Amino acid sequence: MGAVQEALDALKLTDHHCHGVVTADLSREEFEPLLTEGGAWPGGSTFDTPAGVAVRRHCAPLLDLPRHAPAEEYVARRAELGAREVNRRFLTAAGTDVFCVDTGYTPHRLTSPAELAAAAGGTPYEIVRLESVAEAVAARGVEAGEYAGAFRAAAEEAVRRPGVVGVKSVAAYRTGFDLDPARPSDPEVTEAARHWLAGGGGRLAEPVLVRQLLWTAVDLGLPLQLHVGLGDSDIRLHRSDPAHLTDWLHLTAGTIPVMLLHCWPYQRQAAQLAAVFEQVYLDVGLALHHVGPARSRAVLEEALEITPYRKLLYSSDAYGVAEFHHLGALSFRRALAGLLQDRVDADELALPDALRFAEWAGAHNARQVYRLPWPS
Amino acid sequence: MGAVQEALDALKLTDHHCHGVVTADLSREEFEPLLTEGGAWPGGSTFDTPAGVAVRRHCAPLLDLPRHAPAEEYVARRAELGAREVNRRFLTAAGTDVFCVDTGYTPHRLTSPAELAAAAGGTPYEIVRLESVAEAVAARGVEAGEYAGAFRAAAEEAVRRPGVVGVKSVAAYRTGFDLDPARPSDPEVTEAARHWLAGGGGRLAEPVLVRQLLWTAVDLGLPLQLHVGLGDSDIRLHRSDPAHLTDWLHLTAGTIPVMLLHCWPYQRQAAQLAAVFEQVYLDVGLALHHVGPARSRAVLEEALEITPYRKLLYSSDAYGVAEFHHLGALSFRRALAGLLQDRVDADELALPDALRFAEWAGAHNARQVYRLPWPS
Amino acid sequence: MGAVQEALDALKLTDHHCHGVVTADLSREEFEPLLTEGGAWPGGSTFDTPAGVAVRRHCAPLLDLPRHAPAEEYVARRAELGAREVNRRFLTAAGTDVFCVDTGYTPHRLTSPAELAAAAGGTPYEIVRLESVAEAVAARGVEAGEYAGAFRAAAEEAVRRPGVVGVKSVAAYRTGFDLDPARPSDPEVTEAARHWLAGGGGRLAEPVLVRQLLWTAVDLGLPLQLHVGLGDSDIRLHRSDPAHLTDWLHLTAGTIPVMLLHCWPYQRQAAQLAAVFEQVYLDVGLALHHVGPARSRAVLEEALEITPYRKLLYSSDAYGVAEFHHLGALSFRRALAGLLQDRVDADELALPDALRFAEWAGAHNARQVYRLPWPS
Repeated sequence: MGAVQEALDALKLTDHHCHGVVTADLSREEFEPLLTEGGAWPGGSTFDTPAGVAVRRHCAPLLDLPRHAPAEEYVARRAELGAREVNRRFLTAAGTDVFCVDTGYTPHRLTSPAELAAAAGGTPYEIVRLESVAEAVAARGVEAGEYAGAFRAAAEEAVRRPGVVGVKSVAAYRTGFDLDPARPSDPEVTEAARHWLAGGGGRLAEPVLVRQLLWTAVDLGLPLQLHVGLGDSDIRLHRSDPAHLTDWLHLTAGTIPVMLLHCWPYQRQAAQLAAVFEQVYLDVGLALHHVGPARSRAVLEEALEITPYRKLLYSSDAYGVAEFHHLGALSFRRALAGLLQDRVDADELALPDALRFAEWAGAHNARQVYRLPWPS
Repeated sequence: MGAVQEALDALKLTDHHCHGVVTADLSREEFEPLLTEGGAWPGGSTFDTPAGVAVRRHCAPLLDLPRHAPAEEYVARRAELGAREVNRRFLTAAGTDVFCVDTGYTPHRLTSPAELAAAAGGTPYEIVRLESVAEAVAARGVEAGEYAGAFRAAAEEAVRRPGVVGVKSVAAYRTGFDLDPARPSDPEVTEAARHWLAGGGGRLAEPVLVRQLLWTAVDLGLPLQLHVGLGDSDIRLHRSDPAHLTDWLHLTAGTIPVMLLHCWPYQRQAAQLAAVFEQVYLDVGLALHHVGPARSRAVLEEALEITPYRKLLYSSDAYGVAEFHHLGALSFRRALAGLLQDRVDADELALPDALRFAEWAGAHNARQVYRLPWPS
Repeated sequence: MGAVQEALDALKLTDHHCHGVVTADLSREEFEPLLTEGGAWPGGSTFDTPAGVAVRRHCAPLLDLPRHAPAEEYVARRAELGAREVNRRFLTAAGTDVFCVDTGYTPHRLTSPAELAAAAGGTPYEIVRLESVAEAVAARGVEAGEYAGAFRAAAEEAVRRPGVVGVKSVAAYRTGFDLDPARPSDPEVTEAARHWLAGGGGRLAEPVLVRQLLWTAVDLGLPLQLHVGLGDSDIRLHRSDPAHLTDWLHLTAGTIPVMLLHCWPYQRQAAQLAAVFEQVYLDVGLALHHVGPARSRAVLEEALEITPYRKLLYSSDAYGVAEFHHLGALSFRRALAGLLQDRVDADELALPDALRFAEWAGAHNARQVYRLPWPS
C-alpha cells in the first residue's frame, strides 16, 4: 500500500452530498431495489449488477460474512443484525466525519442528518432541495401571482435553518439543462405558475419555473448542487449534459459556486466547465458505488484529465442503504489513491503534491466551498 | 490462461446479430472495402486500420499464413483457398453455434442463414429487418391509405416464417432516435405514406413512418434490435444516441425486449438504459471487430460499468467476410474474459460469479430473450 | 525503452497546428493564465492543474531545475533566463522541424512563424484563420452587398502569401457545427452581413456568415482546420460535437481535406468521421498538453480505436508559452509509442507496421495532406 492510500485511508472524508438511510429492517424484497436505480425485476437479482457484486465483496465482511457471500446470506445476516447496527457499522467504516445531507427526497422513512452523522460520530449539515420547497409551496396553496414571492420566502426560510450549507436542484430530471439561461420575468413566472398550479401542482417541471428556481438559488447565495448524468429512468440523459449550462454559467459568473454531482457519463464535459469557470466544481458521487471499485478509477481518471485539483470533491450520493456510504468512500479512496500513487511511482507527480491533492479532494475543497469549520 | 478464458473458449456463443458472408471469391479490390465502413480510398489500404491489422494478425494463421502476413499475401491465399473453404475455416473457428442473421441488407450475394450456420455446424435463426419489409411493400405498389395495413400484414407474414426470432430497425440511420415517441395516428401515417410513395418509395426515412415502424415492432411482440452508434457515412452519430429513446421506452415498457446493437461511442448511454429499463439489453457487436482485440476490452468495460449482467449479449455484426465472425468472437471472448479474470484475480469478483456472468453474456441471455431452445 | 519510442524520439515531428510564443519576459501573474484555458483565479494557482503538474515535471529540467520544482522557483528561473533563451530551449527540445502556425489569434505579442521555427531550426508554414480575415474586412469598412466578394478576395489574397498551406475556422466557438450544411445564397449572405455590419462587425458569429466562411474554405482548395471540442469558456462544448458536420461533409466530399483539431472529448466521434469520410483527418492537439503525459495515451487510444492510420496527425496547439510546444511533442511521442509498443509486445501488431504508423502520424500524413516538401 502506497503513501497516498495510507494518507487517504487516514483522512476523514467530507461527503458533500448524500442522503439518509432507511431506519427500518429490510426484507430481501425491500433491500434489492435499493441497490439500483432501476428497481428489481422478476427473474433476476439486483445483486447481479456491478453495485451488487461490490456489496457482496466489500460489505459482507463488515457483517461478519466471508467476502462474496451469497445474496440470501447477506440479506439474512443484515436482518439478523438489525438496521441500527448495520447502519452503524457501515457509517463508521466509511471514515466520513462531515455529512452534507440532501433532505428533499424521502420515498422511505430515513434517518435525519443528525441521526446519520451520529451513527458515524460525524457532523451533519443540510442541503435544501429547492424543487421540494417549491412543491411544498404549491401544496400549501398559493395564487399564481404570489408564487414567485412565496417560493423565494420559503427558500430563504429553509436555508436559514441551522446547519444548512447549500441548496440542490434536480433540474436535470425535470427539464434538462437545455433551458433559456436568462432569469425569467415576473409575468413569465406568474403565467407558468398559473399553468402548473391549474394542473394541481405536484412535480415541478415547468421550464420557466425551473429557470426561476435556478435563479433563486443565485439569490440565496449558497453553493448550488446540480444533479448531472446517471440516475433513474426519469432522467433523459442527453438533456443532462452539463455543457448545456454554459450560457447560464456565463450569466451567473461571480455569484454562487455550482457543484456538478455524479456527472457520469459526462465527466469530461463537467471537467471542461470546471476548468474554465471559476465557480464550477464537480464530483463523481453516484457513479462511485454504481460502477464500484472496479471502475471508479477509470471514471475518476476521465474526470480529472483537465479538472484543476481545487475543483474535485467527494460525495457518496448514498441513499437508503448505508452500504453505499461505505462503498462510495472506499471506491473514492482507492480510485484517487491509485491514480495519484501510480503517477508518483512513474515520477509524473511529486509525493507532496499527491498528498496535497488527495486532502483537497477528500475534505478541504468541500470545507472551503461550503465554509465549514474544521472539526476540532 | 485463466479459468474464465478457458470457460469462454469452451463456450459455444450465441451470435444474436450477424449477417451472411459473400459466396463469391473476392479480389483485393473487392475484399478491401469489406474491411471497413468507409470504403476503399485511392492511395491507401483498408488493411491500415485497426480492423485490418487485426485481420492480418488473427485471421492469417487460419489461412496457414504467418501472423501479420502482408496484405497481398493474405488476399492471394484467400483466393487460392476459395470462398467456401475460407468461410468454413473462420466460421468454424468462431465457436458460435447459434446465428441470428439479419437478412435485410444484401448489397452483395450472401449466404442464407442456413448456409451460414451449416458452415459452422450451428443453428440458424432469422432477424427480419423492418425497413426492408416496408420498402418491399412500397416497391410492390400500394395506395397511401393502405400502406399501414399492408406493411403490418407483410411484417406479420415475414415474422411467421420458420426460424424468425426477432426484428430489426435501422431507424438510427434513417431519422435518428430524436423522434416523437408517440404512436402516429392513422391519418398521419397515410399522409406520410402519400409523401413517401409520391417520391417513388425507396429508402424509408419519413419520421412518421419510422415511428410507425417502431410501433409495429411493438405489435409484433418479438425482440426488436436497434442499430445504435457507429456505422457507415449514412449515420449521423449524434442522432443515434440511444438516450433519445427514453420517452419511447417509457411508453413501450412491458411490451417487447429492445436490443441495443453496437452502441459505440454511446456504450455508457446504452448502459444507463439497460440499468433502468427492464426491457433493454445491449451488445457492443460491430465495435468488436472494428476496434479489434486491442481495444474491445476497453469498450466493453465502459459498457459494463453499470449494466446488469443479465443484460449483456454477444453479437459479431459480421457482414460479408467471415473474418469478422471469427474476429468478433475472439475479441468478445478475450475482452470479457480479461475483464472478469482480472477482477477475480484482484478478489473483486468470485470465480463462480465470473463464470456465470460469462455464460450469461456469451449465450444464455440471448437464448432467454429470443426464447431459443438449447442445442441438444 | 522500446523500438517504437526510439523511432519516435528520433523522428522530427510536423506540428500541423500551433501558435507563436510570447516574446516578452513573463511575470508569474502573466505566466499563470497562459497555462490554462480558464484564466487564473484568486486563491489558487494554475500550476495545480494536470497541465501545471506536467510543466513542473517535464519542463523544469530544461530550465536546469529539479523535476517537480516549486512554481515560484520555476517562474523565477524562467525570468532569469529570459524569454528568448527559454523559448529556444523548449522549441529545440520539442524535436519539431515543421511548424504550421495559426497566425489569426494574437491577444499577446507573439513570435512570427519564421521566428518560431528559427528558434527550433525548423521550417515555418502559415495557417490563415478565416474569421480573422472576415473581421478585418469588416473593420476596413465594406457594404453588406459587397461583403461576400470582399471576404473572398481577402481570403484568396491571404492564402497566396508565401508559406500559407491551409486555413482554419473557429466555427466551433462562434456558432457550433449544428448549421444548415448548404452553401448560403448571395441574398442570404448580404442580409446576414447587413445585420452583422450594422452591429459594428467585430466577432463574427452570424450563422449564415459562418456557413459562407466554411464554403469559402472549400473554394480556396486548401486543407481546412476546424477547432473541435475543448477550449476556453467561449466554447459550448456540445455544439462542437463534430458529428454535426456529417451533412456538410457529404456535400463537400471530393473537395478539400478537413482536419479536426483536438476533438476531446469527442475523439471517438471524430474517429467515426475519419473512418468513413475520405477527406477527414484528426489530431488530439490541445488535449495533449492539457491532460499531460499522464492521460494523453488514454485519449489517443480512444481516438485511434477506429481511425485509419493514414488519418492521424500531430499538433501541439501550443500558444504563448513554448513549454506547450515541448509538452505536446513529448506527450504525443510517449502516448503513441506506448500504445504501439504495447501492441507489438502483445504480438497484436508487427514492429514494421508500428514503425510505419508512427512515422505517418508524426510527420508523413501531414506532409502529404498539406503537400509539404520533405526537408533536405
